[in-house]
Amino acid sequence: MANSEAESRVLRLRAALDSGRWAPVKRQLASLNPSEVAKLLAALPERERNLVWEMVDPADDGQVLLHLPEDVRDGLIRQMDTAELVAAAEDLDIDDLADFVDSLPETVTREVMRALSDADRARLEAVLIHEPDTAGGLMNTDTVTVRPDVSLEVVMRYLRMRGELPAHTDALFVVDRYGVYLGRLALDRILTRDPASTVTEVMDRDSEALAVDMSERDVAQEFESSDLVSAAVVGSDRKLVGRVTVDDVVDVIRADAEHNLLSMAGVDEDEDLFAPVRRAARRRALWLGINLCSAFLAARVVGLFEATIQQVVALAVLMPIVASMGGIAANQIVALMVRGLALGQIGAGNTGALLRKEMLVALINGLLWGLVVAGVTSWWFDSPTLGFVIGLALLLNLMFAAMAGLLVPLMLRRLGLDPALAGSVIVTTITDVMGFFLFLGLGTLILL
Amino acid sequence: MANSEAESRVLRLRAALDSGRWAPVKRQLASLNPSEVAKLLAALPERERNLVWEMVDPADDGQVLLHLPEDVRDGLIRQMDTAELVAAAEDLDIDDLADFVDSLPETVTREVMRALSDADRARLEAVLIHEPDTAGGLMNTDTVTVRPDVSLEVVMRYLRMRGELPAHTDALFVVDRYGVYLGRLALDRILTRDPASTVTEVMDRDSEALAVDMSERDVAQEFESSDLVSAAVVGSDRKLVGRVTVDDVVDVIRADAEHNLLSMAGVDEDEDLFAPVRRAARRRALWLGINLCSAFLAARVVGLFEATIQQVVALAVLMPIVASMGGIAANQIVALMVRGLALGQIGAGNTGALLRKEMLVALINGLLWGLVVAGVTSWWFDSPTLGFVIGLALLLNLMFAAMAGLLVPLMLRRLGLDPALAGSVIVTTITDVMGFFLFLGLGTLILL
Repeated sequence: MANSEAESRVLRLRAALDSGRWAPVKRQLASLNPSEVAKLLAALPERERNLVWEMVDPADDGQVLLHLPEDVRDGLIRQMDTAELVAAAEDLDIDDLADFVDSLPETVTREVMRALSDADRARLEAVLIHEPDTAGGLMNTDTVTVRPDVSLEVVMRYLRMRGELPAHTDALFVVDRYGVYLGRLALDRILTRDPASTVTEVMDRDSEALAVDMSERDVAQEFESSDLVSAAVVGSDRKLVGRVTVDDVVDVIRADAEHNLLSMAGVDEDEDLFAPVRRAARRRALWLGINLCSAFLAARVVGLFEATIQQVVALAVLMPIVASMGGIAANQIVALMVRGLALGQIGAGNTGALLRKEMLVALINGLLWGLVVAGVTSWWFDSPTLGFVIGLALLLNLMFAAMAGLLVPLMLRRLGLDPALAGSVIVTTITDVMGFFLFLGLGTLILL
Repeated sequence: MANSEAESRVLRLRAALDSGRWAPVKRQLASLNPSEVAKLLAALPERERNLVWEMVDPADDGQVLLHLPEDVRDGLIRQMDTAELVAAAEDLDIDDLADFVDSLPETVTREVMRALSDADRARLEAVLIHEPDTAGGLMNTDTVTVRPDVSLEVVMRYLRMRGELPAHTDALFVVDRYGVYLGRLALDRILTRDPASTVTEVMDRDSEALAVDMSERDVAQEFESSDLVSAAVVGSDRKLVGRVTVDDVVDVIRADAEHNLLSMAGVDEDEDLFAPVRRAARRRALWLGINLCSAFLAARVVGLFEATIQQVVALAVLMPIVASMGGIAANQIVALMVRGLALGQIGAGNTGALLRKEMLVALINGLLWGLVVAGVTSWWFDSPTLGFVIGLALLLNLMFAAMAGLLVPLMLRRLGLDPALAGSVIVTTITDVMGFFLFLGLGTLILL
């Protein structure tokens, strides 16, 4: 089974915790990297989590906090004093620090700013002025730059003098004397080309820099489609301001995917599976409340047909079938639309064709399952007319479901909202209401 | 708006297609990289897609096919003749070729194998013997290796002689004379350390190699937690067999996330939004059919209470509320569980704590919304007893929903199945059946 290693780690740690022996817990923690410690903490119930957190090496505090889901991070930060938080912040890269600062209380942020060197403070401010979900918010300022007119020999001498390069440096950036971005010089070219050649001869001019205000989703698509490890970020004046690295892009992709999955199901993406009961209950209550309104709306529709149901109780027995099939069909389309919109595959150019296609798919499945439902119902209630009513209602509701599943995500996006919100509640309301109305309405017309 | 560039590209291309002018279409295609061409093709309806495909530069065919969703790829491959397919295959890396070969008809695979050089054929076979969803299936065999006892000076001379390095080479791998993996030598260390030092002195011994049979999900977690760009893959004898690079890992993460999103909604992950109507209808029919069985089951339960409904029609009006609230609550938990299981956060060590927590959350929300429903119902139907019945049924159904949402994904995983299958159909069946049974059952006991 996958994940068995992670599981057995949690198990061993909990066993050690339960037995009250701290030495093995500490030993186990010391063997993990910050991201693994973060995963472990996120998987522990709150009491154990706080105990283990006390035992994490303070030098790792910053990195561990950074890798935690927001909810868990906020919980732990609330227990730390300012001195601990400042110490944790000092060990972070500028781009990580910028993320981290967002979680800190105002007063601590000021302390952290004061503790930084002037140069670091300026760099942090350079990142903080950008929206967090843009290339500027994702970037780090640790670029290594070279001039176009020097030889590779000189570049190599410079690098040896400079020492260690920042993580994920697969290329140096070539800039002119004004700091304007000209291209990139991959490390492997420095190593494989003739040392006498100049940077201009060897550098890659085709690799486009990212604009500082590019959305992080577009950044991720650019990394994916061009298989990048790092990319330069430039301001509107084409001057180099920083670089984005693939590790941060992976986080964006992961977060985006989780967001879609959770918001389709009506959960807040920041919800921590091991959050305290009160917080989890509050966060989920919202969608349940919205759904309750929508369920009452559906009940109102059923209520319109009380007299009909009184005479033909079979309608009440069968009506959940029509509604439920519509819900499933609509959610299938919503999921495909959410993926298609995230990948940038859907636009004004093809919605017409898509709608025609989905209506046809609904027609085919409506005819197929409508006939099945009609057959089973005719036999169960010994009434071909009732069979005809439910078959027709199912067919029509699947067509409505196709329209709703396709158009609601598009409309949400047009309004600047998240298309995944169409999932479960909104689209299901439409298919429930239409399902009950069609079935009971047709029943009233045809059976009475 | 995000994606607007991609959208406008599709729009422009379709306009050019509609006008029948091929020159601008070709010009636009030539300015895109293979992954962008693939995205464009995937976003076009079938007729236009085939037209555009004819115009793609044959030298890019292989790369474009590789970036397409499986469904679209298979459609295009069916139209190509063997010579074209062999030509497309020849331009691919070994790891990409291994993926590609899976999509080819048997006869073409044999042709492709014959067209390869002996060395390439041996390398392809080395990748093909591994399961596609393991490190071995993901890896490429284009490793660049060095011996531990040479100096960096010598390594640099060797690299200059060798020329261009494979894409995503951020490190060379250090192996002994038997090919056993010893560690990695990062390119930036070659550039920044004293050229007289030996590989042994400079190399990183701590970086663990991946086992060839490690699951691709674990590989992705390792890349994420250690922020890797490439990692060595070793066989059970610790001999280096290949390397995995971050671009392939990004694809795994993306595919995994899409899989969860779509399978929660009951759609096949390979389904192409622009698939031909007949294929799309067939693929979605399965879940609709399963859901129909489950809906009939729920209807059977309602049917048990026909006599009760006859006397108190309000029960029929209100019963969808109880079922729908249970469905939403259960799906919220399923989404959190699917994410938690994918991240390896859930195991035997904490399911007990999780279940207790979710039952408490359900109790709180059940009491809250149970009271609201009871109040509204008492007022609407002027019957406090009916209000009490629906409030209690809602509370109990939310508790059942919590159990189902938590335990069904765990059970599926224990059975070696995909936990995301719990979404929509399975869990909703449970909450529908329980919702109707509890509400109508309590109604029969209390109201009659």
